[in-house]
Amino acid sequence: MPPMAALYCPAAAAAAAAASSPSLSSFASPSPSPSSDRARASTFSLAFGLRAKPAIPATTFGRPGGIVAPRSPIRCAVSIEKETPETERPETFLREADGGGNGAAAAVAPSSVRARFERMIRDAQDRVCEAIEAADGGGKFKEDVWSRPGGGGGISRVLQDGAIWEKAGVNVSVVYGVMPPEAYRAAKGVASDHKPGPVPFFAAGISSVLHPKNPFAPTLHFNYRYFETDAPKDAPGAPRQWWFGGGTDLTPSYIFEEDVKHFHSVQKNACDKFDSSFYPRFKKWCDDYFYIKHRGERRGLGGIFFDDLNDYDQEMLLAFATECANSVIPAYIPIIEKRKDTPFTEEHKAWQQLRRGRYVEFNLVYDRGTTFGLKTGGRIESILVSLPLTARWEYDHKPEEGSEEWKLLDACINPKEWL
Amino acid sequence: MPPMAALYCPAAAAAAAAASSPSLSSFASPSPSPSSDRARASTFSLAFGLRAKPAIPATTFGRPGGIVAPRSPIRCAVSIEKETPETERPETFLREADGGGNGAAAAVAPSSVRARFERMIRDAQDRVCEAIEAADGGGKFKEDVWSRPGGGGGISRVLQDGAIWEKAGVNVSVVYGVMPPEAYRAAKGVASDHKPGPVPFFAAGISSVLHPKNPFAPTLHFNYRYFETDAPKDAPGAPRQWWFGGGTDLTPSYIFEEDVKHFHSVQKNACDKFDSSFYPRFKKWCDDYFYIKHRGERRGLGGIFFDDLNDYDQEMLLAFATECANSVIPAYIPIIEKRKDTPFTEEHKAWQQLRRGRYVEFNLVYDRGTTFGLKTGGRIESILVSLPLTARWEYDHKPEEGSEEWKLLDACINPKEWL
Repeated sequence: MPPMAALYCPAAAAAAAAASSPSLSSFASPSPSPSSDRARASTFSLAFGLRAKPAIPATTFGRPGGIVAPRSPIRCAVSIEKETPETERPETFLREADGGGNGAAAAVAPSSVRARFERMIRDAQDRVCEAIEAADGGGKFKEDVWSRPGGGGGISRVLQDGAIWEKAGVNVSVVYGVMPPEAYRAAKGVASDHKPGPVPFFAAGISSVLHPKNPFAPTLHFNYRYFETDAPKDAPGAPRQWWFGGGTDLTPSYIFEEDVKHFHSVQKNACDKFDSSFYPRFKKWCDDYFYIKHRGERRGLGGIFFDDLNDYDQEMLLAFATECANSVIPAYIPIIEKRKDTPFTEEHKAWQQLRRGRYVEFNLVYDRGTTFGLKTGGRIESILVSLPLTARWEYDHKPEEGSEEWKLLDACINPKEWL
Repeated sequence: MPPMAALYCPAAAAAAAAASSPSLSSFASPSPSPSSDRARASTFSLAFGLRAKPAIPATTFGRPGGIVAPRSPIRCAVSIEKETPETERPETFLREADGGGNGAAAAVAPSSVRARFERMIRDAQDRVCEAIEAADGGGKFKEDVWSRPGGGGGISRVLQDGAIWEKAGVNVSVVYGVMPPEAYRAAKGVASDHKPGPVPFFAAGISSVLHPKNPFAPTLHFNYRYFETDAPKDAPGAPRQWWFGGGTDLTPSYIFEEDVKHFHSVQKNACDKFDSSFYPRFKKWCDDYFYIKHRGERRGLGGIFFDDLNDYDQEMLLAFATECANSVIPAYIPIIEKRKDTPFTEEHKAWQQLRRGRYVEFNLVYDRGTTFGLKTGGRIESILVSLPLTARWEYDHKPEEGSEEWKLLDACINPKEWL
């Protein structure tokens, strides 16, 4: 998941599966057709109380004003406010009622899950960036901070063209939004005679993709996010809801079995501290999620992935997400230390570039956070920092059977148990 | 549009806009959510008479059998049969009733629009490939021919790592399929008391993307396609329907105004032979279609684009599509001859690579033919041959105001009238 994955709304996806109305079924789907975009926007602008845009002919889009504002209005169901760059990192992106600002709530709210999750991802961002800079020994992260008028914001940190990493992004974001009532209902089965209006939600997440230069050093991705709705005001008895999601996964171009075993064992250890069912379940979920359907291949060699998780104690899941985030450095940095200076040929590099092409295909075509973020007007540079610096597509490339490249491809096609 | 664009079904998109049923609204939409895929597949497998797949848990996909068959079953509404490689180009990909084979129909059907359109695109493929090989002076096209058991097939030709072009694909394909009855109705407004069953359709198209190496030599894309349904057997009076679509557009990394003017003037001349409204209308349509919404930018500097065109005489539109296909060589090759040897720096090359990244973003996120093809199980290598050999993504890259790179970006954000 990319930086704005925090915004991806699992309840809306559930609603889409239920397909209880034509417009809802499109909620989380990117659309290749301007005309179906239009149909959807008109429905959702009502649901969300967004301004309705006048109907315009299919494939006629508004033109952006000029080069200084290169983002045009995105005619989409859910859109988020334009972000404002900030010169300093705020203490918190929370609204005052959630513990932000200096008001009375600030004294009581810091113990809320919202506040503690934001603190956790901010700390994780700091620690991961420090570890990456230390291991890289050359590159430094560039930081962009932004906020949104109604609350929320984010911090993007990107290290580009370092000694070890060609592109490393570690982002946190906090989003306040409003979800369609159908999505809320589909998620929790509120009695159908209750018809709540649009439900405010809160989402926060950390997301990171680390692409090294050396073709024997693997790419790492991790993302942890927390999602919470308000209790709908006009549906008595309907509860506040929450979910956790996230995961950490490894994408090498070449298999070093000891590296993959090390990576998976750190994930398993983190899981086993909480529930022995977690690792097998989330390992499989990861293999299933990072699936490039049109290729019949996974993006990489997996790890763990979970979504919409709310059927455990909330404190336990907060602790679990924290443990997972804390496991990123011990899972990844030792592998990098071992592989960063391995000599390689042009052929090794070309194969890495082809696998980077697959990374691009997965992220632009399938990744929920990316596709949702692109459609809803999230901060584009933060969303697309997950893409590699460079990628390659050769027509009908097939590695020679039995070669190292073939072994990697085979493991992407037929996921293995590494432990 | 990519090679399999011929398969993209405009009527289905129209139906999606009308959103007359939840399942239909998803017909032409890629979905980031396995669960909504599932909901859709169950509906469409009925509509299409495809085998229904058992419901499986969200994000659980079937595993492909092995590395030799790296395409897994795609659980999608519309799917097409697996292609079979052929060792020789057949005279035609048409079914016998349409003029294929040696049966009685072969003697009468060659004058059908289906037969003449296939002949036209096969001729255009030959002539464009000859012109590219002649201009390249080094590279040769590699050809892949395939057919499908129920009729139809295609020829992919790819020149990779030539002297001038790093990747040039010129593909033709012929598809026999079945469209949902709702799509047929939405397209032509058949009286609602007629409920035709699934409607067989025929589609044929040529599609090409030519990516040169030199950053001052532009990428060209063109695609022309013809789409025809049978008359539904069970809805008396409902007519056979047909549409033409296509276009030719130019994507430079740097603007040479004389090149862009030349390119657009060849397009205008082709249009003006048929209808003086065509060029202004199809020029705007092109600017609107090749729009990267999340960037607020067009992919390039446009050309012409049209779709679902059936409100003119059918013979006239066949002649128009032929004229457009014949205009590709005179519109493009003179520009290549002028720019292919222009000296360039690493910075010029890096900018070209960033623009290639935008090309990838458009094709994977928005292009109807690509997204439709990926979801329906078209021949993946033919679909993705439209992607450049290499591409690049830098975080938050902004060209210096007034620079040549800035001028190109400005023209992609604010489309210009070149003539």
